[in-house]
Amino acid sequence: MADTKVYRASTTAPVNIAVVKYWGKRDPKLNLPTNSSLSVTLSQADLRTLTTASCSSSYTEGDSLTLNGEASDVSGARTQACFRELRSRRAALEAADASLPKLSAMPVKLVSENNFPTAAGLASSAAGFAALVQAIALLYELPDSPSDLSLVARQGSGSACRSLFGGYVAWRMGDKDDGSDSKAELIAPASHWPEMRALILVASAAKKGVSSTSGMQQTVATSGLFQQRISTVVPANMALMEEAVKAKDFTKFAEVTMRESNSFHATCADTYPPIFYMNDVSRAAIRAVEHINAKAGKTIAAYTFDAGPNCVVYYLEESSSTILGTFYQALGEVSGWKEGTAGIKSTVELESSLASSLKEGVSRVIMTGVGEGPIKTEEYLIDENGQAVKR
Amino acid sequence: MADTKVYRASTTAPVNIAVVKYWGKRDPKLNLPTNSSLSVTLSQADLRTLTTASCSSSYTEGDSLTLNGEASDVSGARTQACFRELRSRRAALEAADASLPKLSAMPVKLVSENNFPTAAGLASSAAGFAALVQAIALLYELPDSPSDLSLVARQGSGSACRSLFGGYVAWRMGDKDDGSDSKAELIAPASHWPEMRALILVASAAKKGVSSTSGMQQTVATSGLFQQRISTVVPANMALMEEAVKAKDFTKFAEVTMRESNSFHATCADTYPPIFYMNDVSRAAIRAVEHINAKAGKTIAAYTFDAGPNCVVYYLEESSSTILGTFYQALGEVSGWKEGTAGIKSTVELESSLASSLKEGVSRVIMTGVGEGPIKTEEYLIDENGQAVKR
Repeated sequence: MADTKVYRASTTAPVNIAVVKYWGKRDPKLNLPTNSSLSVTLSQADLRTLTTASCSSSYTEGDSLTLNGEASDVSGARTQACFRELRSRRAALEAADASLPKLSAMPVKLVSENNFPTAAGLASSAAGFAALVQAIALLYELPDSPSDLSLVARQGSGSACRSLFGGYVAWRMGDKDDGSDSKAELIAPASHWPEMRALILVASAAKKGVSSTSGMQQTVATSGLFQQRISTVVPANMALMEEAVKAKDFTKFAEVTMRESNSFHATCADTYPPIFYMNDVSRAAIRAVEHINAKAGKTIAAYTFDAGPNCVVYYLEESSSTILGTFYQALGEVSGWKEGTAGIKSTVELESSLASSLKEGVSRVIMTGVGEGPIKTEEYLIDENGQAVKR
Repeated sequence: MADTKVYRASTTAPVNIAVVKYWGKRDPKLNLPTNSSLSVTLSQADLRTLTTASCSSSYTEGDSLTLNGEASDVSGARTQACFRELRSRRAALEAADASLPKLSAMPVKLVSENNFPTAAGLASSAAGFAALVQAIALLYELPDSPSDLSLVARQGSGSACRSLFGGYVAWRMGDKDDGSDSKAELIAPASHWPEMRALILVASAAKKGVSSTSGMQQTVATSGLFQQRISTVVPANMALMEEAVKAKDFTKFAEVTMRESNSFHATCADTYPPIFYMNDVSRAAIRAVEHINAKAGKTIAAYTFDAGPNCVVYYLEESSSTILGTFYQALGEVSGWKEGTAGIKSTVELESSLASSLKEGVSRVIMTGVGEGPIKTEEYLIDENGQAVKR
C-alpha cells in the first residue's frame, strides 16, 4: 500500500536587525557577501514568521507556498536552491537507512504567516527563509546544526542565515568559492545580554525605491568608496562589535551600530545613480537619538537603518523610561505602544520641530528586544489532511 | 603737508560652484585642502559681489568692512591674514620705490554688496573674499597675477581662490607645508565653452545645520570612507573633469559632476555624528534630473549640491528648452525665471509627486551660466571723501 500520509512540522523564526551591515554580494548566485555582518535577533513575541512544512505523496500539484493567505511563487532560483539543498540532505539520510520514508521524493506544501504587517517594510525575507529552511529541516528530521542550516537559508536570502540563531549572531563571509564557509555563528545567546531592547519607528512612506538585491549590486559596481568599506571599515567594526557584545559594553555597541548604519547609507548615497533609503523623517529620528544621548550625558540609545526609512533604536532595559518616554511624547498617538508606556515620564524633551517631523512621518512603533532563534511548535498551519488551516 | 587723500579701487567678483568638491583641510590655519578641486565660475550678471576698497591716513577707526549695509567684523584670523599678506606685498613695492604713497600704513575701509539675497544660502564667502582681495590688490596696484592673488584669497575662504578666475578653474592642493603651491589655475576660459548654463533651485529651508568649516573637519576626523575619497576618488575625478572641460564633453562633465556630488555627500553622511546637507527636496531634484536624462536618451543635465540643500543643475545652451521647460512646469510660480521662460515648452513631464515635492521645497530659482572672473569697475561704494555711498 502506498504511503499517502501527510508529514508535518512547524517552526517559528525571528527577524534580525544588523548592527554591522550586509551590503554587497561577491557571488550573487550563491548569495556570498563582500563582507561579514553581525545582527541582533529580535523577540518572536513581537515579530516572527510561523511556517508549517508538510509533504505527502498525495500532493498532486508540486511544491507550493502560501504566505499570509496568498499563493507565493516557488519557482525562483533562491527558493529552488533551498528545496534542492534540503532534499539532497534528506535523500542522503534515506540512502543510508532504507527504513526511512522517502520524503525527499514527495512534493512539499508550505504555509507561512507573519505576525506583523508586511506593509511595515520590515525585512521579512530573513524570518521567512529561516522559517522555511528550519521547517523543512524539522520535517525531514535532518541532524544539521543551525550553522549548517544557515548555509541553506543564506541561499534563500542572505540575511536569513542570521535568523537561525537567537541573540547576537555573526555571518562570517568566508572565502571559499563554493560558499561552504559563508555561514552564521553564535556570538552570544540572548541570555548573555538579555537587557537589549529595540524600538522600531515605522515610517509612513515605507515603499522601497530600489530593492536590496539590485541596490547592493549597483553599489558594488559603481561606488568609489565601497572598497574602503569592505576592506577596512567593516573588518574593524566586526572586531569592535564582537568585543562590545562579549563585554556587554553598550557605549561601544551603540557607537559601532551608528557608525555602521552611517557607513552603509553613505555607500548607498555614493552609488551611481545614488540610492537613498533614508528620508527627512529618518534624519529626524537620528537627531532625536543624538539629543537623548546628549541630555543623558552618555550613550544610551543607538539608531540603525536597513534598506528603508524605518529607524530601529537599540537601548538597554535600564534606559527604557528615557527612551520610551521621550519618543512617546512625540508619537503617543500612533499604534504599537505596549500597555503602561503612556505612564512613563521622561525628563528629555524633543525640540518641537523634531517632534513634529517624527509625528508627520512615523505611522506606528514596535516595542521589542533581543530574543531566541527558531522554535519548534505544535501549532500547525496545515491540518492532518494536508489542507491549509482556516484562520 | 600730510597726504590725506582717499585712495579707492572697485571690483566685482563671481560665485563659483565646484564640480569636483573641496571638502577637508590638511591645515586649517592656512586653509590647505586635503584634495584638489575644480569649479565653474558663474556669470556676474546674476551673482556677484561688488567691493570698493579704499585707504586714507584720514581714516581714524582702523580697518573696517561694511557688507550689505552692515558693519562686519574684520578681526577674524582669516580676514586679518588677507590684510597682512596684501599689505606686505604693497610694502615691498613701497620699499623698492620711495615715490609711491605709503598705502600699506593706512587703515583700509571696505564696502561690499551682493546682488543676490544672502538668505539664499549660496556660498557668498567665495565671491566675498575674492572681491576683497582683488579690490585691495587694485588699490595697492599690486603686479600679482590672479593665481598669485588666489594664494591670498584661499586664506580668507578656501573656495574663494577659485573665484579669481572666470571659466573653468582648478584649485591645485599643492604639497608644501607653507601652502605656497596651493592655488588656483585656469583650466579653460569661459570663452572656451561658453554654452554652459546653470539653473539653481534655491531650497526654502536653506539654513545650514553645520558650517562647512566645522563639518569638513569632523569628516576628516571621523569618516572611515574619507581617505578613499581623497586618495583615489578625487584624483581620478580631477583628471576626468579636466579632460571633459578641454574636450567640451558634456556627458563626461555631467557624470563626474554628479558622482562627485554624491561622493562628497556620502562622506558627510559617513561623518560621526552624520552631517546631512541634502533633504527630501534635494533628492526630488536629483530624481528630476535623472528623469530628464532618461527621457532625453542622453545626459543633458547634471546636479550638484554644496554644503546645503540647493540644487545646481548644469546643462548646455542647446538643452535649455528641455531643462527650463521641465522645471518651469513644476516651479513656474516661484521667482527668478527670466523673461521668456514661461513660453518654453518641454516634452518631458515630471511625475506629479516629484513636481509637488519640488513645488513645496523650492522657494526661488536663479538662471545663470559660466562667466568671467573679477572685473575692475568705476562703480564705487565709497565716495571721494571716504564715505559709504547711500544706495
